[in-house]
Amino acid sequence: MLKQEDYKQHISGRFNSELESLRNNMLGMGGKVEQQLLNALDALMSKDSGEAEGVVSLDKEVNQMEMAIDDECATIIARRQPTASDLRLVIAIIKVNTDLERIGDEASRVASLTLRLAEDGVSPSNFVEVRHIGNRVAGMLREALDAFARLDVSQAIEVVKSDQTVDKEYASAMRSLVTFMMQDHRKIGAILNEMWALRSLERIGDHACNIAEQVVYLVQGLDVRHGRLAELDIETLDRR
Amino acid sequence: MLKQEDYKQHISGRFNSELESLRNNMLGMGGKVEQQLLNALDALMSKDSGEAEGVVSLDKEVNQMEMAIDDECATIIARRQPTASDLRLVIAIIKVNTDLERIGDEASRVASLTLRLAEDGVSPSNFVEVRHIGNRVAGMLREALDAFARLDVSQAIEVVKSDQTVDKEYASAMRSLVTFMMQDHRKIGAILNEMWALRSLERIGDHACNIAEQVVYLVQGLDVRHGRLAELDIETLDRR
Repeated sequence: MLKQEDYKQHISGRFNSELESLRNNMLGMGGKVEQQLLNALDALMSKDSGEAEGVVSLDKEVNQMEMAIDDECATIIARRQPTASDLRLVIAIIKVNTDLERIGDEASRVASLTLRLAEDGVSPSNFVEVRHIGNRVAGMLREALDAFARLDVSQAIEVVKSDQTVDKEYASAMRSLVTFMMQDHRKIGAILNEMWALRSLERIGDHACNIAEQVVYLVQGLDVRHGRLAELDIETLDRR
Repeated sequence: MLKQEDYKQHISGRFNSELESLRNNMLGMGGKVEQQLLNALDALMSKDSGEAEGVVSLDKEVNQMEMAIDDECATIIARRQPTASDLRLVIAIIKVNTDLERIGDEASRVASLTLRLAEDGVSPSNFVEVRHIGNRVAGMLREALDAFARLDVSQAIEVVKSDQTVDKEYASAMRSLVTFMMQDHRKIGAILNEMWALRSLERIGDHACNIAEQVVYLVQGLDVRHGRLAELDIETLDRR
């Protein structure tokens, strides 16, 4: 297992201010995307179309970051020919980079729903579920990035567990929105907007989960995607 | 520019039955995912829950393929330390692999809607839009994989163009489904299912588009994601 201390020592050694810079750029992009999500939720709750437009326009910056990080990864592989844990770091970052960019896309989608509120009105649920699930997935994203920064497998496992809760809450929220729709079909447009927002948030939870799974791959060299984390003995994994 | 002939010559040369095998495995996974999508559409149209279950269970196999291909990519980078176009091929495959796996997920989602038909009934549109958009995105996926196999930039560009049409058709289909909902709110559950299917298909179009963009990166070393293909002079690009 790659301990945080060994890792830091290695990083401070010969070859890699480059790896350190790559890692920092990825975490920086993570911070930007997290902010995009929080602003998107805030814009939707406060019906602030100016803030929503800000989130949508931030997406260009995030896309640029994604391309720059991929480029940096390719350059490091070509020039430095990393192996073992260094290579795992680069590959994990290529994967996380894709997830972060897609979280940015989903955050933009949530923000752009704010711009439709004037037209369709506010959902009768008053976004209770969006607020709740939104806060939860924003927390998951923060935890996943933090686990990546600190190479903390236990924290990564917690993120994966949270996703199961989000999936349940999402299903229950959708059912109650369908009920609202049946009761008052003049509100259909507004409720659909809330459903789209929830769908985006649920996807953001999945992406945060993917990031957490990359932490396990990075630290332990284990591919735990597609529910394989649940099959493993989590306690054992944690102590490896 | 990397011509198909040069590429084949290279492949047949010293170092890489390994690269060739990686590429074939990726294309094989592409074929599997394409079949998953076609079966999912067929299951939905013919209300065949057995076929739908088949699609969902195929997803495990696709997930296994994704992990095996990622593993193969990491091994090739570590052992062979590829550079230039070989490295681009490996990186493009890492990216395409993620998109293919997510197409498989979306196809499973479409299939699983079939299993809800008994409960919610059939949408009053009788899946006209799902059929139409489904066939179009299945075509895009086939073209994108074919462009990858033949390193055909023109074909890749056609896929990206098709995605713009899909986005328009998707928006228009959603509007007409909202109208159906307002007219007959007893059909809300059924129409929502059709909406979810359309959403999944629209995403599959996006993923096919991502695959096509990787063909341009692979052949020309240009990153054309995030609408940058439209900014470039496509005719020039095609003749490079």
